[in-house]
Amino acid sequence: MILSDHFKQVRQHSLLLAEPLSDEDCGAQSMPDASPVKWHLAHTTWFFETFILEALEPDFAPFHPAFRVLFNSYYNGVGDKHPRAQRGLLTRPDMAQVRAYRHDVDARIVRLLASELPRTERERLTMLLALGMEHEQQHQELLLTDVKHLLAQSPLFPVYLETVVVAQPGSVASGWLAFEGGLTDIGHAGDGFCFDNELPRHRQYVAPFELASCLVTNGDYLAFIEAGGYRTASLWLSEGWDWVRNQHLACPLYWQQGEDGRWLEFTLHGLQLLDLRQPATHLSLFEADAYAHWAGARLPTEAEWEFAAQDVAVQTGSLHPALAVSLDGLQQMFGHCWQWTSSSYAPYPGYRPAAGALGEYNGKFMLNQYVLRGSSCATPAGHARASYRNFFPASARWQFAGIRLAR
Amino acid sequence: MILSDHFKQVRQHSLLLAEPLSDEDCGAQSMPDASPVKWHLAHTTWFFETFILEALEPDFAPFHPAFRVLFNSYYNGVGDKHPRAQRGLLTRPDMAQVRAYRHDVDARIVRLLASELPRTERERLTMLLALGMEHEQQHQELLLTDVKHLLAQSPLFPVYLETVVVAQPGSVASGWLAFEGGLTDIGHAGDGFCFDNELPRHRQYVAPFELASCLVTNGDYLAFIEAGGYRTASLWLSEGWDWVRNQHLACPLYWQQGEDGRWLEFTLHGLQLLDLRQPATHLSLFEADAYAHWAGARLPTEAEWEFAAQDVAVQTGSLHPALAVSLDGLQQMFGHCWQWTSSSYAPYPGYRPAAGALGEYNGKFMLNQYVLRGSSCATPAGHARASYRNFFPASARWQFAGIRLAR
Amino acid sequence: MILSDHFKQVRQHSLLLAEPLSDEDCGAQSMPDASPVKWHLAHTTWFFETFILEALEPDFAPFHPAFRVLFNSYYNGVGDKHPRAQRGLLTRPDMAQVRAYRHDVDARIVRLLASELPRTERERLTMLLALGMEHEQQHQELLLTDVKHLLAQSPLFPVYLETVVVAQPGSVASGWLAFEGGLTDIGHAGDGFCFDNELPRHRQYVAPFELASCLVTNGDYLAFIEAGGYRTASLWLSEGWDWVRNQHLACPLYWQQGEDGRWLEFTLHGLQLLDLRQPATHLSLFEADAYAHWAGARLPTEAEWEFAAQDVAVQTGSLHPALAVSLDGLQQMFGHCWQWTSSSYAPYPGYRPAAGALGEYNGKFMLNQYVLRGSSCATPAGHARASYRNFFPASARWQFAGIRLAR
Amino acid sequence: MILSDHFKQVRQHSLLLAEPLSDEDCGAQSMPDASPVKWHLAHTTWFFETFILEALEPDFAPFHPAFRVLFNSYYNGVGDKHPRAQRGLLTRPDMAQVRAYRHDVDARIVRLLASELPRTERERLTMLLALGMEHEQQHQELLLTDVKHLLAQSPLFPVYLETVVVAQPGSVASGWLAFEGGLTDIGHAGDGFCFDNELPRHRQYVAPFELASCLVTNGDYLAFIEAGGYRTASLWLSEGWDWVRNQHLACPLYWQQGEDGRWLEFTLHGLQLLDLRQPATHLSLFEADAYAHWAGARLPTEAEWEFAAQDVAVQTGSLHPALAVSLDGLQQMFGHCWQWTSSSYAPYPGYRPAAGALGEYNGKFMLNQYVLRGSSCATPAGHARASYRNFFPASARWQFAGIRLAR
Repeated sequence: MILSDHFKQVRQHSLLLAEPLSDEDCGAQSMPDASPVKWHLAHTTWFFETFILEALEPDFAPFHPAFRVLFNSYYNGVGDKHPRAQRGLLTRPDMAQVRAYRHDVDARIVRLLASELPRTERERLTMLLALGMEHEQQHQELLLTDVKHLLAQSPLFPVYLETVVVAQPGSVASGWLAFEGGLTDIGHAGDGFCFDNELPRHRQYVAPFELASCLVTNGDYLAFIEAGGYRTASLWLSEGWDWVRNQHLACPLYWQQGEDGRWLEFTLHGLQLLDLRQPATHLSLFEADAYAHWAGARLPTEAEWEFAAQDVAVQTGSLHPALAVSLDGLQQMFGHCWQWTSSSYAPYPGYRPAAGALGEYNGKFMLNQYVLRGSSCATPAGHARASYRNFFPASARWQFAGIRLAR
Repeated sequence: MILSDHFKQVRQHSLLLAEPLSDEDCGAQSMPDASPVKWHLAHTTWFFETFILEALEPDFAPFHPAFRVLFNSYYNGVGDKHPRAQRGLLTRPDMAQVRAYRHDVDARIVRLLASELPRTERERLTMLLALGMEHEQQHQELLLTDVKHLLAQSPLFPVYLETVVVAQPGSVASGWLAFEGGLTDIGHAGDGFCFDNELPRHRQYVAPFELASCLVTNGDYLAFIEAGGYRTASLWLSEGWDWVRNQHLACPLYWQQGEDGRWLEFTLHGLQLLDLRQPATHLSLFEADAYAHWAGARLPTEAEWEFAAQDVAVQTGSLHPALAVSLDGLQQMFGHCWQWTSSSYAPYPGYRPAAGALGEYNGKFMLNQYVLRGSSCATPAGHARASYRNFFPASARWQFAGIRLAR
Repeated sequence: MILSDHFKQVRQHSLLLAEPLSDEDCGAQSMPDASPVKWHLAHTTWFFETFILEALEPDFAPFHPAFRVLFNSYYNGVGDKHPRAQRGLLTRPDMAQVRAYRHDVDARIVRLLASELPRTERERLTMLLALGMEHEQQHQELLLTDVKHLLAQSPLFPVYLETVVVAQPGSVASGWLAFEGGLTDIGHAGDGFCFDNELPRHRQYVAPFELASCLVTNGDYLAFIEAGGYRTASLWLSEGWDWVRNQHLACPLYWQQGEDGRWLEFTLHGLQLLDLRQPATHLSLFEADAYAHWAGARLPTEAEWEFAAQDVAVQTGSLHPALAVSLDGLQQMFGHCWQWTSSSYAPYPGYRPAAGALGEYNGKFMLNQYVLRGSSCATPAGHARASYRNFFPASARWQFAGIRLAR
Repeated sequence: MILSDHFKQVRQHSLLLAEPLSDEDCGAQSMPDASPVKWHLAHTTWFFETFILEALEPDFAPFHPAFRVLFNSYYNGVGDKHPRAQRGLLTRPDMAQVRAYRHDVDARIVRLLASELPRTERERLTMLLALGMEHEQQHQELLLTDVKHLLAQSPLFPVYLETVVVAQPGSVASGWLAFEGGLTDIGHAGDGFCFDNELPRHRQYVAPFELASCLVTNGDYLAFIEAGGYRTASLWLSEGWDWVRNQHLACPLYWQQGEDGRWLEFTLHGLQLLDLRQPATHLSLFEADAYAHWAGARLPTEAEWEFAAQDVAVQTGSLHPALAVSLDGLQQMFGHCWQWTSSSYAPYPGYRPAAGALGEYNGKFMLNQYVLRGSSCATPAGHARASYRNFFPASARWQFAGIRLAR
């Protein structure tokens, strides 16, 4: 596909995701960690405007002078930012203006792509465009997790998508797969796109280990609950136990027990009976770690996960959950839910962030967060790879995050 | 006007107020003290449905079973309530559904009014309908102050109404008017509607006092600021001084100083140059009290205010600000801004709240709030009277509240 | 008694109250509202040093230059203050230094009293000394309530005083006493000492009312608890109901129920069986008001209370609880526990605070607090009178505050 | 030394550290993270009583039944705990009782040591006693850092120790020392005592790196401040920048600038002129990391630090700072201040916590904390080693923690 078509396609996909939503839905912010859909649509546009048009467009003029601040997420190098917790109060600009903003910036990017540029500028444009599209794909996943969190606030339990698009596979008995480990290279290799936090590829020693072939299921996790998991201090990290007690938690984020004792789960398709065969998701690292303790196992390190993913090479081929079932070997590495690792998010040896404001993309967040590997049902097609490092604080539950055991 | 027409008119006015707003605007909640416009529109409807239709309609069935909880403001007697601070997350039901809700309940109320009813039920209906309409008018004012607060959160300073509807009067030199006081009766008299907190009319002794003929103006208040009012501890109540310091306050809520030193004020007509002749508004009781100290005066008690209002009888006639200017005597008692009194909100001797859940309307709030008298530019026509008791906590600034001095 | 002897006696009494306590006990602060005993001992000394010695002593030099800030409670006019919540971290100066501070200031005050002074200075000294002694007596009561709160934090339930000094009277059947009311004068009269908030004496109209002859007892209050008082929203002020629910309250501050179902109360004599005949105490205004609702009554206004106290004149004679029992008439007005009124703490008409920093003594606290009348078992002898206005926020429970009903 | 003598010596040292302090000093708690000296003295005793006497003493009876809860720090397996933030309110038991508690438990431990025991019990006793003594040494360091923090709260800047005991060495020019790295074994080796978190010794691959030969000095750090370090967002981790801004930080914890511009530092010897040659200390990981960025370097990983420490073997010999100066090679690895690493505190591969409540000693804290290596001027003699893993949250500043650069 030519670059401008790829660009249009990625951009179009964000609007598609917003289609089932009203303007009201798009404006609300359910918690400081989440952002309104409208903000996602504007911020991803701001990224192209600020880092590409402002740098490379001749006679650049901003679409709207206030947007530079309004839709700056966290780039101190760009300047002031609208307070994160107040993104849901920006009823102006409205959705129509944000759509116009997208349209305008898209047209200018396409025009820039079609124009004649010196070679270094052309290369920089290509690199920044790739980064901008991957950035937009990250926000496409966040858009879905944020919408899910928002809709869950209404006692009407609204439906985002009426029909379940993908037939879910039946559960598969999990087993242990052994890996020899040894001296290995970790980090992105090859010519394809990667984020700076996947570099440099570097040597690590990995001791022999085993990975579960499948993800922990809702049924597995229910057994943990019924065995008193949320009431047993000895299973939890100290901070996790405080978290469970202060918030009076007794089950995953979107689970609820009906008066008849049956478990229900709020999904993007509305409130559904809990499917015990599906991978358990929307778990914090605290819950994932406590479950692993209870199961007599542990979470993998990110090096172990990547070592295994390299070895089995499941990341090639389609990421569609329906196709990821096989009879043996590692399953559900991609396309179901992100998998918590025990690794804190830290720079690889020799890590160098980009110069300027773009250097804030990843590096400054490498503290008190933990790495998740794989990808989820909400990850856009083509966005995942074995070296990809997702990361969230240990208490985050609103992402599609689950558990693969190691030992 | 016949009752059903009056009802329709009051109900229609709420929708008129929402007309300049998008659905997005109507859904957002800028702070826990404020509510979304959509919530105001639904809650006032809930009031008619819950307290009239549910009690008097034959074969009553709720418009939507979830609304009883969703749009209950604070009536424990009715049952559970949606958490106040999360009203802005209810993107569902959407505006269209809320409009349908209003339409349905309105039609049923009109039908009920036209039906044959036993006399006691008819009387109860008439009484409850009057209460419901006055209740809706209270929310019409809140809707405007809440919208103003919401729009003020956007750095775009959006305009609610393009044109300033009413030409504002020029300022008038204020003077002191003396009142003899003595034994007097305070509280509502006569047959017209009043809230239960205006009753019973009762005897009080009021010592001789003086009232300022006009409200404190922006110009007056600016002099206080320039004299260091916000930096002088001795002018403030202890709690007020903590409030000023913790929040780093240096001017009224919607004022800002441009880089050229000129003062601007955010209004429902957008950002405007501060008009020094207009009454100062959006002041907390803390600010009103500190200003009064600085001016060598004090705030009136609510008995003094009502005594004076009874005496001069300005409350008859139109409440339009443009018409409230007279050459002498008490001015600006109504239609400009509410006037803080030094009186804490307390039950009148012999006060009896209504039976049942409606008894929660006023009585349970009679603590740590202070009485404001008069009415504001946002008060619907016909809603004000001399015995009316508005009330807010001492720190509230988002209401149209100003200062009339006493001594 | 000559003035210097009276002064020495008042000062000595503070040290007597600290005698059963260790230096450790005297240094700790159990909550921001309470102060360490050591701080009370130092602050009352600071009051004499700052407002008398600094003003009137020739060649004044401070005992320690840092104490002016360290032991300033809330006088902005004097300058900076050590943060209130960190008084318990001042292990230095230690108790020995604070005793030396008291000794030094006492000696200088006595010397000043014995010296020759111009008449206006002599009068000012006499006035300030009276204020300082009454101020110290206020802190003597606070010292006891703060110590009680501190000792209650230890699961060892330490005893402050081994023996119960005063034999408590048996309970007396309460009845209603009727008062005619009418135009009356409220506020302090006569030549004796009073605080500025008791002035000026002024006219008020009081409607006819009835007062309970006795205070609500522990037995009465237990009946309220057993009737579900803490679980019944309709009995509570809105803010009080939030307070009950947020703090999960189900009984008064120092009550606890043993495993055998018997109620115990922590007292200055340690943990004791609850005496059902004693007046209920350590109640917030929220609890007092809810109880009154439940009992079909209300709290008195401060004008009613003072009207009754003037009428029956129980305030003369000893304040010893043992002697306050009579066969009829108003009982327990003084010496048992302070009695919440429904009156918010506000300036009397014409109130004028003192000039300078001493003007901060009372006036700036006249907001969001409620008046208590009478006196308690912890009030020093001679400190109470009918016009005395004590005040606390509605949620305060660590004072000896109880309930006298009105209707 | 025979074991019982070693035990007595370690126990005696805790009392020695408390000697310069009054009982008041010993009772206060300056923040939730810190504990009162009295609590340290009692908790270390509780450790011996709970984990040794209760398990091994025939006819065990607790010294005081309430102490099991009062002095339990964080062992859920032992049962309830007194709330951490309220340790400073426990004026009872007083210091005399806590000394008696220590005396009693010490005597019983010595008696147990002298008694005849089955071999497995004897081995268990020996192991637990070693753990208890190392535990007490950890609290000896905390006692000093907590006392320093407490005394710093008083504007009198009290002195803990009058004379500076150890003459501090002059500064030494720092240089870079190169290490080859490679496959190496990390973790404790040999027969001596270590904590469970130092095990198992395991293989890691360490890439070639360089370490600074000396710690960053006060003079170095002052240059960072003067270059605007605390005002430059790009130097800081995102969470660190929020921390700097929210707390308005501009220098290390105990630094202050006099009116003459000179820098002072609060120390255990009182307020002193800042010595520019000394290692900078009381730094958070946020500050250490920002400094390293500014200096064009980074913090070492814990594996690098341990690799270097193994290589150069400076950890043998005396830990006295005065003796740690050498002409070349790694200096100041021990005895000056702990050195932040970039490694999050995580279990070593194959880590197994102890069974029962003692398993809570380390493992449950392995989240959102970062490892420090080395030892400080407050670490008891004999307590440090190359494999020792200290750990604190990134914002902790009250420990003696400084910076060794890597690249």
